[in-house]
Amino acid sequence: MLAILTGGTGGAKLIDGLACETGPEQLAIVCNTGDDFVLHDLYISPDLDTIAYTLAGVADGEKGWGVRDDTFAALEWLAKYGEEDWFKLGDRDLARHIARTHLLRGGATLSQATDRLSRALGVGAKLLPMSDDRVETRIGTPDGEISFQEYFVKRRWAVEANRVVYKDAENSCPAPGVLEALRAACAIILCPSNPATSIGPILAVPGIRAAIKETRKPVIAVSPIIAGAPVSGPTDRLMRATGVEPTALGVAKGYADFLDILVLAPEDRNWRTRIEALGVQTVELPIRMNTLEDKRSLARGLLALL
Amino acid sequence: MLAILTGGTGGAKLIDGLACETGPEQLAIVCNTGDDFVLHDLYISPDLDTIAYTLAGVADGEKGWGVRDDTFAALEWLAKYGEEDWFKLGDRDLARHIARTHLLRGGATLSQATDRLSRALGVGAKLLPMSDDRVETRIGTPDGEISFQEYFVKRRWAVEANRVVYKDAENSCPAPGVLEALRAACAIILCPSNPATSIGPILAVPGIRAAIKETRKPVIAVSPIIAGAPVSGPTDRLMRATGVEPTALGVAKGYADFLDILVLAPEDRNWRTRIEALGVQTVELPIRMNTLEDKRSLARGLLALL
Repeated sequence: MLAILTGGTGGAKLIDGLACETGPEQLAIVCNTGDDFVLHDLYISPDLDTIAYTLAGVADGEKGWGVRDDTFAALEWLAKYGEEDWFKLGDRDLARHIARTHLLRGGATLSQATDRLSRALGVGAKLLPMSDDRVETRIGTPDGEISFQEYFVKRRWAVEANRVVYKDAENSCPAPGVLEALRAACAIILCPSNPATSIGPILAVPGIRAAIKETRKPVIAVSPIIAGAPVSGPTDRLMRATGVEPTALGVAKGYADFLDILVLAPEDRNWRTRIEALGVQTVELPIRMNTLEDKRSLARGLLALL
Repeated sequence: MLAILTGGTGGAKLIDGLACETGPEQLAIVCNTGDDFVLHDLYISPDLDTIAYTLAGVADGEKGWGVRDDTFAALEWLAKYGEEDWFKLGDRDLARHIARTHLLRGGATLSQATDRLSRALGVGAKLLPMSDDRVETRIGTPDGEISFQEYFVKRRWAVEANRVVYKDAENSCPAPGVLEALRAACAIILCPSNPATSIGPILAVPGIRAAIKETRKPVIAVSPIIAGAPVSGPTDRLMRATGVEPTALGVAKGYADFLDILVLAPEDRNWRTRIEALGVQTVELPIRMNTLEDKRSLARGLLALL
């Protein structure tokens, strides 16, 4: 059993590859929920959904979010009614948010709702939210703090980010099964997700970082940075906002207290000596994943390290 | 200004005709909300929506409910997630329920939400729910009481109805503008809607029936029954469940305390003497509306009575 920490897009690619190589039932996935938010009074959990759609084989790989071949009829009419339409909810995707909100309002925890929605799509992996408590990733900007989705989707990361806050993390608990999965895993893999806003919130949930530190099994991270540039999105800007240089070395520093191996791109081999001085081994692998074969190949590379 | 009492389907047809003949801004429509219900945690108001879609020119006239050319992608996925799918929510239609629920949860009254959603679609008539309070039409069956939608849509009126209850009607108030519209109108028209479950709930809201009785302007009803058979749906069965014979005479008896004129089909002329003995005038008009011209023609016939 592998325990995997992930956000949405980048993590989904690696998880896609790993699920092909090991079978999904070998994966216990601890997913960021710091990006969750409420829109139209619906509870939306973007990273959990991206991972679920990926594992169910219905993800829109092209866009990196949502359901393949989805339509946007409801959204178009929501806009007519004056509802916000910057978050592109497809019709098929909307069903998930409606069903989840219904379950949550009926008293289900986010874990229970996630489990039910995952099974409904035939997801074979164990997919866990990092916490059943609300932890909200907020981005400091010159105009004040905004939610991650507002920064990322509504403002298209065009505004300066100067701080990342995991609101209410200190009062949160890991969701049921999270610590157990980390302790039972034969290895822990941190996906090439944004350290500031995908992996950071997970590690901010009290108990999770400690469980990773304590395991005697290998802890491996895949760098989300290649040659100083993010593989996708504003990873570099948000790392800088947390005071970390957006390099493979910066990634390693953030995880150095528990990390055994950082998998980095050959382009970043110049950082290897300085990373290894932190007590973190380095392995070069092609970490850019465009095709399914890229994903599977990286997954095989990681499995070979175990 | 005409004040109109209506349910969904049958009423929508007449309102369509009236709006063409008088202009929509001449209509103040008091709409049944006894059929309203909550599904998927969304507040659904079928009659208000049918009337709004009709006045906005986007109704699915073929089906008699929902938005023309709507798609059902979200519903298909809601079913995957284990949500009930007997109530056929289209994607465009769903947007209205999401927006309304959002407005209601944000503190808007049903009137305010209705007004906002109506304006958004360019509805020119004044569309009012009968009440901002929850009044629930429930149908007694041999297996106990069920909601109107469960009777009508889920069970397709295949179960015996032996009672109709307007739950909490006694504690409800007319929505703002309803009594004013009834008092100010130059005539009040009761649409050919089900007397038991469309007009009945409206009249059960304290103050509405009295306001109609008190007006000195003509009060005209169009019969929803032709030759002992309902123009659509289970009108006959539900009238019987309230102890009323499903005939033009039965309709007249139910409204006799305030009705000036009952418009009935030529097929029902045999009832005229007995209806007029109740103090209700009768007028024969072709009341079956299939085409837009049928609707306009009936509307012109009614306007000619004023």
